[in-house]
Amino acid sequence: MTASDKRIKAGIVGGTGYTGAELLRLLAVHPNVDLHCITSRSEAGSPVAAMFPSLRGFVNLVFQTPEEAQLEACDVVFFATPHGVAMNQAEALLAKGVRIIDLAADFRLQNTATFEQWYKMPHACPEVLKDAIYGLPELHREKIVQAQVVANPGCYPTTVLLGLAPLLDQQNLTNGATIIADCKSGVSGAGRKASVGTLFSEASDNFKAYGLPGHRHHPEIFEQLTGLAGSEVSLLFVPHLVPMIRGMFATLYVQLADHASATDVQHLFESYYADEQFVDVMPAGSSPETRFVRGGNMVRIAIHRPGNGNQLIILVVQDNLVKGASGQAVQNMNLMFHLPEATGLSYPAVLP
Amino acid sequence: MTASDKRIKAGIVGGTGYTGAELLRLLAVHPNVDLHCITSRSEAGSPVAAMFPSLRGFVNLVFQTPEEAQLEACDVVFFATPHGVAMNQAEALLAKGVRIIDLAADFRLQNTATFEQWYKMPHACPEVLKDAIYGLPELHREKIVQAQVVANPGCYPTTVLLGLAPLLDQQNLTNGATIIADCKSGVSGAGRKASVGTLFSEASDNFKAYGLPGHRHHPEIFEQLTGLAGSEVSLLFVPHLVPMIRGMFATLYVQLADHASATDVQHLFESYYADEQFVDVMPAGSSPETRFVRGGNMVRIAIHRPGNGNQLIILVVQDNLVKGASGQAVQNMNLMFHLPEATGLSYPAVLP
Amino acid sequence: MTASDKRIKAGIVGGTGYTGAELLRLLAVHPNVDLHCITSRSEAGSPVAAMFPSLRGFVNLVFQTPEEAQLEACDVVFFATPHGVAMNQAEALLAKGVRIIDLAADFRLQNTATFEQWYKMPHACPEVLKDAIYGLPELHREKIVQAQVVANPGCYPTTVLLGLAPLLDQQNLTNGATIIADCKSGVSGAGRKASVGTLFSEASDNFKAYGLPGHRHHPEIFEQLTGLAGSEVSLLFVPHLVPMIRGMFATLYVQLADHASATDVQHLFESYYADEQFVDVMPAGSSPETRFVRGGNMVRIAIHRPGNGNQLIILVVQDNLVKGASGQAVQNMNLMFHLPEATGLSYPAVLP
Amino acid sequence: MTASDKRIKAGIVGGTGYTGAELLRLLAVHPNVDLHCITSRSEAGSPVAAMFPSLRGFVNLVFQTPEEAQLEACDVVFFATPHGVAMNQAEALLAKGVRIIDLAADFRLQNTATFEQWYKMPHACPEVLKDAIYGLPELHREKIVQAQVVANPGCYPTTVLLGLAPLLDQQNLTNGATIIADCKSGVSGAGRKASVGTLFSEASDNFKAYGLPGHRHHPEIFEQLTGLAGSEVSLLFVPHLVPMIRGMFATLYVQLADHASATDVQHLFESYYADEQFVDVMPAGSSPETRFVRGGNMVRIAIHRPGNGNQLIILVVQDNLVKGASGQAVQNMNLMFHLPEATGLSYPAVLP
Repeated sequence: MTASDKRIKAGIVGGTGYTGAELLRLLAVHPNVDLHCITSRSEAGSPVAAMFPSLRGFVNLVFQTPEEAQLEACDVVFFATPHGVAMNQAEALLAKGVRIIDLAADFRLQNTATFEQWYKMPHACPEVLKDAIYGLPELHREKIVQAQVVANPGCYPTTVLLGLAPLLDQQNLTNGATIIADCKSGVSGAGRKASVGTLFSEASDNFKAYGLPGHRHHPEIFEQLTGLAGSEVSLLFVPHLVPMIRGMFATLYVQLADHASATDVQHLFESYYADEQFVDVMPAGSSPETRFVRGGNMVRIAIHRPGNGNQLIILVVQDNLVKGASGQAVQNMNLMFHLPEATGLSYPAVLP
Repeated sequence: MTASDKRIKAGIVGGTGYTGAELLRLLAVHPNVDLHCITSRSEAGSPVAAMFPSLRGFVNLVFQTPEEAQLEACDVVFFATPHGVAMNQAEALLAKGVRIIDLAADFRLQNTATFEQWYKMPHACPEVLKDAIYGLPELHREKIVQAQVVANPGCYPTTVLLGLAPLLDQQNLTNGATIIADCKSGVSGAGRKASVGTLFSEASDNFKAYGLPGHRHHPEIFEQLTGLAGSEVSLLFVPHLVPMIRGMFATLYVQLADHASATDVQHLFESYYADEQFVDVMPAGSSPETRFVRGGNMVRIAIHRPGNGNQLIILVVQDNLVKGASGQAVQNMNLMFHLPEATGLSYPAVLP
Repeated sequence: MTASDKRIKAGIVGGTGYTGAELLRLLAVHPNVDLHCITSRSEAGSPVAAMFPSLRGFVNLVFQTPEEAQLEACDVVFFATPHGVAMNQAEALLAKGVRIIDLAADFRLQNTATFEQWYKMPHACPEVLKDAIYGLPELHREKIVQAQVVANPGCYPTTVLLGLAPLLDQQNLTNGATIIADCKSGVSGAGRKASVGTLFSEASDNFKAYGLPGHRHHPEIFEQLTGLAGSEVSLLFVPHLVPMIRGMFATLYVQLADHASATDVQHLFESYYADEQFVDVMPAGSSPETRFVRGGNMVRIAIHRPGNGNQLIILVVQDNLVKGASGQAVQNMNLMFHLPEATGLSYPAVLP
Repeated sequence: MTASDKRIKAGIVGGTGYTGAELLRLLAVHPNVDLHCITSRSEAGSPVAAMFPSLRGFVNLVFQTPEEAQLEACDVVFFATPHGVAMNQAEALLAKGVRIIDLAADFRLQNTATFEQWYKMPHACPEVLKDAIYGLPELHREKIVQAQVVANPGCYPTTVLLGLAPLLDQQNLTNGATIIADCKSGVSGAGRKASVGTLFSEASDNFKAYGLPGHRHHPEIFEQLTGLAGSEVSLLFVPHLVPMIRGMFATLYVQLADHASATDVQHLFESYYADEQFVDVMPAGSSPETRFVRGGNMVRIAIHRPGNGNQLIILVVQDNLVKGASGQAVQNMNLMFHLPEATGLSYPAVLP
């Protein structure tokens, strides 16, 4: 059987939010995927395309209760649910040989104490967690291929980690000063839940910071950065809200170590990502914009080094719903099922 | 006592929505108003400026429960509440000599059967309703001056009625064909209630019609148009949602009667509104934009008559929160208290 | 040779505007197309992906002068140019056997006097015009298959014509009263030319009508409607500008003829478009939104008939850059080269 | 004569841009100002309200050529022009006793070499420059009162300087590490000039950094900060573009000196600005939003100090067209003419 003949039976738990809708958009035209079922207790019985008419003609599924859905018959199940759902269903599915990709945070933090601190719930299956793989393919590709449970990274972590990895991986080229990640997200990052703060009339024509006392993505970035660098990394992370639907932008302020001052950082990044299909290191002096990746799975990075000094400014853009969520989940699935990594994901951004 | 010395003690019931916030913005700098109290059961005890930091330094009030608020000590009470609240409190306040301006629908429809049909509740005080005045100053100024209860018009009715009044008032100059009111509203018209449909990620970068099976403003427009024309008027009203915060636009399609074909419609409108401070009939051929009135109490109108035929296209813009709600309420208050009508309302729109 | 093996060598004249960029986005991943060349005098020598970084990794072409570009070696040339360019180059290309799809207006109006009146230039090749086919596949599919020159329709005409065709085709089911097309367009319809009126600070958070003295798409709609109905149709067309990038919405007000009052209009539309892949007649009572087709080639239509009377309200949405321009051009190309009509166009809309 | 009787004859040079329009909006209702003239060579003869219909009913001026305008009869002339205009007209006006407020950069930098480096033109009147006062009232109030020429600060400098002044004024409380000013601006900051980059379809639903090789406001901030601190300050300034019309947001990363670690920074800021009417130090833990100052002259600041360590995050918001340009110009005028500083500027922000 060739790759192009392979069929993957996929299920989605919790398909009424934006990451679920985005999974549907991508999987509906993925050449190797059969959408088997999608669950939503509140919408059970209602056609998916009634909630998301953009899918009329592409997705014929009807929302089902978890009981009806026969998730155990799937090859892979995506959890596009709030935090805390996947970890309660993981063991039963794994026992049936179903592989799991969780778009929530249940399997992102190996440190369960940290998990409990930030998510205010004990971890339900620490044994499963131990074997779960953090699904950032550019950093953990080989483990993902073998993984039974993939923790799909958060959108901020994806952006920040890919912007810093070449500097920290193997040998730490920074001087240890606090790395500042001034991040900006489109509003879809807040999800499809009714709330006053993300109403059009509140979030439009406006800009603000949020999560200043501490954002859940901080420990995730910290754990990964520390893993990369081999020692604790000091990070200041400030998220902001931009009046755009999709898109994430990181302005990273990093200082090179003295011993690294002769490093050609542009070249370093280009080499590090030379074989990556979804990371684009733009030419020196470039200014990436979020629309350059709108709707696509690409991350674009530009490196600025004013006066060739030790201060670096690294700019990273991605679409928070694609590379920052559902696109990356599909990329992980492709790896897990030995498909070409870009299958179903190779489309240019929608611009303008 | 001169007008400029007069003090009006004002109270607001329900100040946590957009019309309440807009009343606060306007009344905070109204030269004759003392903001006496503002009620909100859910926010009681919390400073108004904590919810709306735009008012820091301008409004020092704290939300109070209705019991604490001593509304009966006010000269005027504005109801910026959901439908059904004002009619239950009106009699008690009137008994204390308090005048009432209701920004909801409780006193807009003289026909209580129609009210019950559209608002799904019996009218609580039909006797008060009988004496309530529909607060569109350009049409009912003299009655407003005397009114104890003013029903502040809906935003769509204000837009449509001012665009049609010169053609229907006294003598009907239309040919009786159905008038089409293709209306477009900014999202703030939907209020500050958390709901999925008005989330930024749903309403931004999008356009849609809504309320097609019938919108509550239809009977209100109908009752007023019929009152103006002296006989029933056929009206088709289709509202649409525009990804902007404020602003309302009406494209009105009306056909002149044959006997009126010699009428200089531009001149007719200019004469009809010659003395109005808040209705601007723009020069022939103009194209009004909602931002021309953003944040201001002005309505701007342009008349188009292709090929000088019988078909008219009348374009009307207003800010739905000002002339379409809170600004008009202040205009009514000024009339009721014998102040110059434009007091506290004479500011240019915020453009860009 | 099977359809899937077929290679089409495509050229684009004028690729620096939005329709050119959109052609590139679609053709870059079209399975049968080899992008051969793209011309721009002002940008000659510069990589396409430098102007549109969204295409980095997808399009490696460099802009060329028309002289360098060897358009005559193409199987098909798309003109994504201002009006008046294609008609001056058509004959030379046709002589070389190159087929032409013009996204501008040069070949849309069969009446050259009308063309000259609206476009202020004489027609350069009336002989070619005679054989040009109006490229609305749903109405002229069979002729498009054979065409050497296809006039890709304007965005407004596509929207309005598809919303009215079932009522006018063959037998006119309307009562002859003026049809009102109250249309709303995203700002990308104005193109990528620097102009004050479409600056973000002018067009955002705003709504306006434009083109009231007459819009160039009026004669195009008129000519096609009249062709469909077999006699002159009275049409009032008012375009408006919506603060969104992509998307077009038409609210069509049509009156059924008395003899058609028993027609099940919903069924009529469903039957008329039953075999169309890119026209979706939504269930009765639906409310289409432009985002339901954002980035996709679909048109979605909903029919409303208040009180089952003779007045119809037909709502139509499309993406002005896809079905309203470049997607439709690709659809035409597919037909002309005997490919399955949906090749390279079958993706769900990007929502949210 | 009391302050309230005083009349100021004001002229505006170059009134077709956003700062000019904003001056008109503010001055039209300023109780002490008579708008005497406004110049624009390109628009001479055309009513101001034809270009800005938002001013219909408020401004009756007609654009005049500079020759017609009799600027020398004014008490004060505002230059809302491109850089390089004011410095060529200043001497002649000063000779007639006219006071000047320049909203461009001509008089902002005392170092003429720096001016020439960034603005690519020699300074035309270095003698006038020497006596020009940098018009940030909170820092230079006493000199502004006496000034003949006021250099109205840039929008970014206003935001950054007010966010840092309490830490640097008199004694430098920072540790000398590079201060990072990650700034975000609404699109109106780019002006009303037609350009592709600020078209709605380019700037909407998007986020980007710009000016990375160096922005003209950097030397301005640097000169002022250095003046405040008494020695050179290291500053990294990265501007970004936000899809909103108005508003500016600064996220300032500053490190406290060890000797200042016991400082109550919240209290420091509150004391420093205790008497300021247009600087609001929000309660500890606050999160300012640009809409909290939309259309108003207020700056709002919040201080965050994670873990009570040496790292400060200072958030500053303002409206770039008001406090960042025309409102500040009016504030300066009030000072120069001994009016209460807030005259004509005391309105709450327009929210939502």
